[in-house]
Amino acid sequence: MTGTTTFPGRVTIPVERYAARIAAAQRIAADQGLAALLIGVGPDLRYLTGYAAMPLERLTMLVAPAASGARASLVVPRLEAMPARGCPAAAAGFIDLRTWEETESAHGLVADLVRDAAATRAASPGGRPPSLEVGVSDTLWASHLLRLQEVLPAGFGPASTVLRELRMVKDPEEIALLREAGAAADRVVDAIASGRLVGRTEADVAREVRERLLDEGHDTADFAIVASGPNGASPHHGASERVIGAGEPIVLDIGGPLGGYGSDTTRTIWVTGGDPSRGPDAAFLTAFAVLRRAHEAATAAVKPGATAESIDAAARDVIAAAGLGDLFIHRTGHGIGLEGHEDPYIVAGSGLRLKAGMAFSIEPGIYREGAWGMRLEDIIVCGTDGPDVLNRSALDLRVVAGV
Amino acid sequence: MTGTTTFPGRVTIPVERYAARIAAAQRIAADQGLAALLIGVGPDLRYLTGYAAMPLERLTMLVAPAASGARASLVVPRLEAMPARGCPAAAAGFIDLRTWEETESAHGLVADLVRDAAATRAASPGGRPPSLEVGVSDTLWASHLLRLQEVLPAGFGPASTVLRELRMVKDPEEIALLREAGAAADRVVDAIASGRLVGRTEADVAREVRERLLDEGHDTADFAIVASGPNGASPHHGASERVIGAGEPIVLDIGGPLGGYGSDTTRTIWVTGGDPSRGPDAAFLTAFAVLRRAHEAATAAVKPGATAESIDAAARDVIAAAGLGDLFIHRTGHGIGLEGHEDPYIVAGSGLRLKAGMAFSIEPGIYREGAWGMRLEDIIVCGTDGPDVLNRSALDLRVVAGV
Repeated sequence: MTGTTTFPGRVTIPVERYAARIAAAQRIAADQGLAALLIGVGPDLRYLTGYAAMPLERLTMLVAPAASGARASLVVPRLEAMPARGCPAAAAGFIDLRTWEETESAHGLVADLVRDAAATRAASPGGRPPSLEVGVSDTLWASHLLRLQEVLPAGFGPASTVLRELRMVKDPEEIALLREAGAAADRVVDAIASGRLVGRTEADVAREVRERLLDEGHDTADFAIVASGPNGASPHHGASERVIGAGEPIVLDIGGPLGGYGSDTTRTIWVTGGDPSRGPDAAFLTAFAVLRRAHEAATAAVKPGATAESIDAAARDVIAAAGLGDLFIHRTGHGIGLEGHEDPYIVAGSGLRLKAGMAFSIEPGIYREGAWGMRLEDIIVCGTDGPDVLNRSALDLRVVAGV
Repeated sequence: MTGTTTFPGRVTIPVERYAARIAAAQRIAADQGLAALLIGVGPDLRYLTGYAAMPLERLTMLVAPAASGARASLVVPRLEAMPARGCPAAAAGFIDLRTWEETESAHGLVADLVRDAAATRAASPGGRPPSLEVGVSDTLWASHLLRLQEVLPAGFGPASTVLRELRMVKDPEEIALLREAGAAADRVVDAIASGRLVGRTEADVAREVRERLLDEGHDTADFAIVASGPNGASPHHGASERVIGAGEPIVLDIGGPLGGYGSDTTRTIWVTGGDPSRGPDAAFLTAFAVLRRAHEAATAAVKPGATAESIDAAARDVIAAAGLGDLFIHRTGHGIGLEGHEDPYIVAGSGLRLKAGMAFSIEPGIYREGAWGMRLEDIIVCGTDGPDVLNRSALDLRVVAGV
């Protein structure tokens, strides 16, 4: 299900990165007093091994003992042995493969591996017996965690205490993929904004967005929010059978992974139907000018050392000063990488300090329930001395005929 | 992200079903001594409320007290209030909506709701104080479960002990959707088998499969396994850059949800490139005849009261009798519905007895590593007196020119 499609000219993650990431994760886990990391199918597994699979009821799990140099094992159902063996970390011999049969207990196998790792460590010269604490990946299914908790008497905590530190700061290749994804999404936004919109349903436009994202090289087209008129007031609206009319705004928020790394961009469009009298009214234009300034202020505030909450405040203060603070009902942004939403979150109360290489969205919005919504979203990488903006399509309110 | 696209003429789940499902889940949960069911984003939530959302770091959770008539609450981030309010169970007033702000603890809110439910029940006349045991949905993320375990001192077990019984037996509308999905996938299989294949990459064919599944009304095209030549020996191969050659087999295994309910069908194709001398050899044809008989035997064994393991054995015995038992390396099938893989699993060791209305795949395969693979898969509904086969495309080895 994972495909191994390669694109000529596309940046790939050098295989050595996986060895370095696994070693770093083992080291940090040991520092935190964990016995092992238990990484199920999902972005953490892909980050550490390059193995991308679908989460299913059959357990696939990387068991990484928290000790430098100890071998990590990828536990996989036998019928997935071939793709697992082909993943970069396994193919390069950085990890061992442990297959299980349909009638075996995969969770018991994981428990045995953890106990072996803990015992080896306790018996090693100078090795202090670690408490049996393990870290599990965030997106592991609860059904797997509950079964592990049954067969493995240990403390269970999040592996994200280890992985988030690593994954938040992107490698150069990861930034290159994010940049490529952003450029591809920009082209889709521009194509949609310059095409016919009036008289089509949101769902029909969303379908075109998805096709274009795939045509532009995206792995999958994960979302295509086409929120017209009053639907724009719902930030996570999808795309309905509502027919787009002349004289209304559309919030277009699209993206998905490309080479594993996400695009996510939002622009606000106003369709006149070709009738100049059906342009945006003064209230909308005023609010949009505020939004634009809020977006600009937050972007300009990005630099190493700035806190996540200060970036959020930079956007929020502008909107609040204009008397619209109650209409900005979500945080300013979220990290992006192998997941569409990941650390760092750009949210009030987060004292996390930005580092060069962190990638996240800046996406203030203003939502007037029953009437309209507006949002502008770019993906930003924190550079060594300021923001590196990955989306380059125009941030203006796109007033188009749409016919 | 969820869309609310409606298709004229497509069967929908009547809204009353959601009330009945929630009530049944509450009753069974109470019988099992649970205090509440905690249902995160995923198929269980969709089953109970009709609400389909993407699993994300922001908690969305149905808290259903295990007491007949007690109101269930859907806890959602404020910015998703609009789509949540629009889901069938909320729109019909069967459940309450509880929104939380970006800076609130959603997990704490869930814990409070569980405690309130337990307290109300303990205080009610004749109400025995329930032990604080809760059931969580299978696909809830571990990150959410760990946080709930922190703030709610309770025993945590799987909600699937409740939900699987309900979800396994399909309503008539669910069967109608599965049937529609199957017919759509059949048309895609037939189109692919009759088109050009030789000289194309697997990935290119997979792309066509995905487009056709969407054109046929699928919500998403979740998988398109195109496994040519030796790749066919890996049951969960995806689609690679391997170029399909003349004189080799292709395992085509495709599907995805339509109206929420999955299709999943596999056929085996042999491409000659138009050269009759490049047809299948005797060994392949012999194995395929065995496979076909195994598939037929398992299908014929389907009836209420038959055990899941007996269906598995019906297929496995035929393949083993032909001396190929070691090459059938997976279970015979899996349930299907709102998930692509769900209960009942058709696997050795499962004494589960089939009931009318259960839907599952029958998909024996034979895999010769380094050489080829073959698999045949239909979705079957257990009828009141035998199998109701949802896939109707020809089960024969499809020997085609493919040029």
